[in-house]
Amino acid sequence: MAASLRVPAGPVDLASITTDATPGFTGAKKDGEVVLLGMGDPLADLQERLFAEGRSGGSRNLLLVLQGMDTSGKGGTLRSTVGLMDPQGVRITSFKAPTEEERAHDFLWRIAKALPEAGYVGVFDRSHYEDVLIARVRSLAPPEEIERRYDAINAFEADLVEGGTTIVKCMLHISPAEQKERLLARLNHPNKHWKYNPGDIDERSQWPVYQEAYELAIERTNTGAAPWHVVPADRKWYRNLAIGSLLLAALEDMGPQWPKADFDVAEEKRRLTEEDPLR
Amino acid sequence: MAASLRVPAGPVDLASITTDATPGFTGAKKDGEVVLLGMGDPLADLQERLFAEGRSGGSRNLLLVLQGMDTSGKGGTLRSTVGLMDPQGVRITSFKAPTEEERAHDFLWRIAKALPEAGYVGVFDRSHYEDVLIARVRSLAPPEEIERRYDAINAFEADLVEGGTTIVKCMLHISPAEQKERLLARLNHPNKHWKYNPGDIDERSQWPVYQEAYELAIERTNTGAAPWHVVPADRKWYRNLAIGSLLLAALEDMGPQWPKADFDVAEEKRRLTEEDPLR
Repeated sequence: MAASLRVPAGPVDLASITTDATPGFTGAKKDGEVVLLGMGDPLADLQERLFAEGRSGGSRNLLLVLQGMDTSGKGGTLRSTVGLMDPQGVRITSFKAPTEEERAHDFLWRIAKALPEAGYVGVFDRSHYEDVLIARVRSLAPPEEIERRYDAINAFEADLVEGGTTIVKCMLHISPAEQKERLLARLNHPNKHWKYNPGDIDERSQWPVYQEAYELAIERTNTGAAPWHVVPADRKWYRNLAIGSLLLAALEDMGPQWPKADFDVAEEKRRLTEEDPLR
Repeated sequence: MAASLRVPAGPVDLASITTDATPGFTGAKKDGEVVLLGMGDPLADLQERLFAEGRSGGSRNLLLVLQGMDTSGKGGTLRSTVGLMDPQGVRITSFKAPTEEERAHDFLWRIAKALPEAGYVGVFDRSHYEDVLIARVRSLAPPEEIERRYDAINAFEADLVEGGTTIVKCMLHISPAEQKERLLARLNHPNKHWKYNPGDIDERSQWPVYQEAYELAIERTNTGAAPWHVVPADRKWYRNLAIGSLLLAALEDMGPQWPKADFDVAEEKRRLTEEDPLR
């Protein structure tokens, strides 16, 4: 499944990617949910190996970048898929509009501060890509600065990969009709009102401009070191399954191994049994 | 169950608290596991309300402080109990030996930086209490500085509570015999070797001194604003259940409510349906 989500090099046409498709998976919702739950154990095992490696001098880690329009399901993915992993080894950062202090620095400053430590799975709920998405749509930066940022992102991510980070970049791809349904659902349920903001409709009105910004951003930053995936996300179960598959494939590729003991196991057993200080 | 774990005011005698007891719960392991799983939904509901409150201008949050000897199960608690909550609203910080930069500041500096934001559940895996525990046992600070720290902790925590934080402080209480079994299990399983450190036996040799340091620290910082709980932790299922009960009781006491919409719901529905920009 992971391979079928990868965006090929070259221009990107989001309209040609069906938002309610289930690429790489032929089963129905129930099947997808069972397969996702079955990923829990291998995900946990590989994640713990990676964590152990990080505690034993390794420098590798994993960074999942989640981007998508409002209501595309970044939060649901965190709960249903990222939640399958041990929270001890996961670091989630939700990026909001930058603070005054953050705006006083280069756009990658706050990103660098949020990078996962060795052994961790970092998850970015929105990311540095906002600085070439909303920044482009809302003209928050001049065109030449947006241009500079594509290259800056590629250099930044290449450095991370060089340093041992595996980067999995995902755009959760929904249709405007699906977004409308989800916004209406938020309006219809008082316990979802807090998720709604009248500004969401203003952003929605820029839908085609956002899609174009995504297409450009994905094309310009779809590198061999840190490739993009577009995940059809109208079906929540498929979205969760797809992100699970991408995480699992990335961890399998990394193939973390249990660290070898850097002490004499037999001697330690002897100390603990024969010389127990608490006898 | 929560009430029976709370440490009464006055001197603390850890030896009088049985490490394999199950205070407040009369069922067996299987029952305890079922009860814990049943807490998943109410925990998730209350946590989401708290998160929503934080996103809507509220300032309250929850801080769980986990302390305990090596192998007492802080990591297992994170996986099995904290893992029941939505990772999006949880911030876990694992405190290690302080860095050079951290040592150049007051001991509460790094703690303050790791406090949860409004609406979040923060979890400290070890904490500022290390600065009156290992610091006392290993004489990392002079006695008068340790004395000063108890008061500093109380003032710091009182400030936090004043600002809207509910603090749940737990010591995971195991017996030395149980620790020995768990250390041996780590030595006997190659995939657990990474968790073992020969220094663990040196720490173990100071067991009585650590227990005394815990007793003093708990007594001196067992305030009305931020009381201590001692959780018998020889039985992992009970430990998980007890921490779940404490989290649930704390969230129920806070009683977070779904925020009221600060916009005109009917008008927004109209905008989204009649004026949909994407029609």
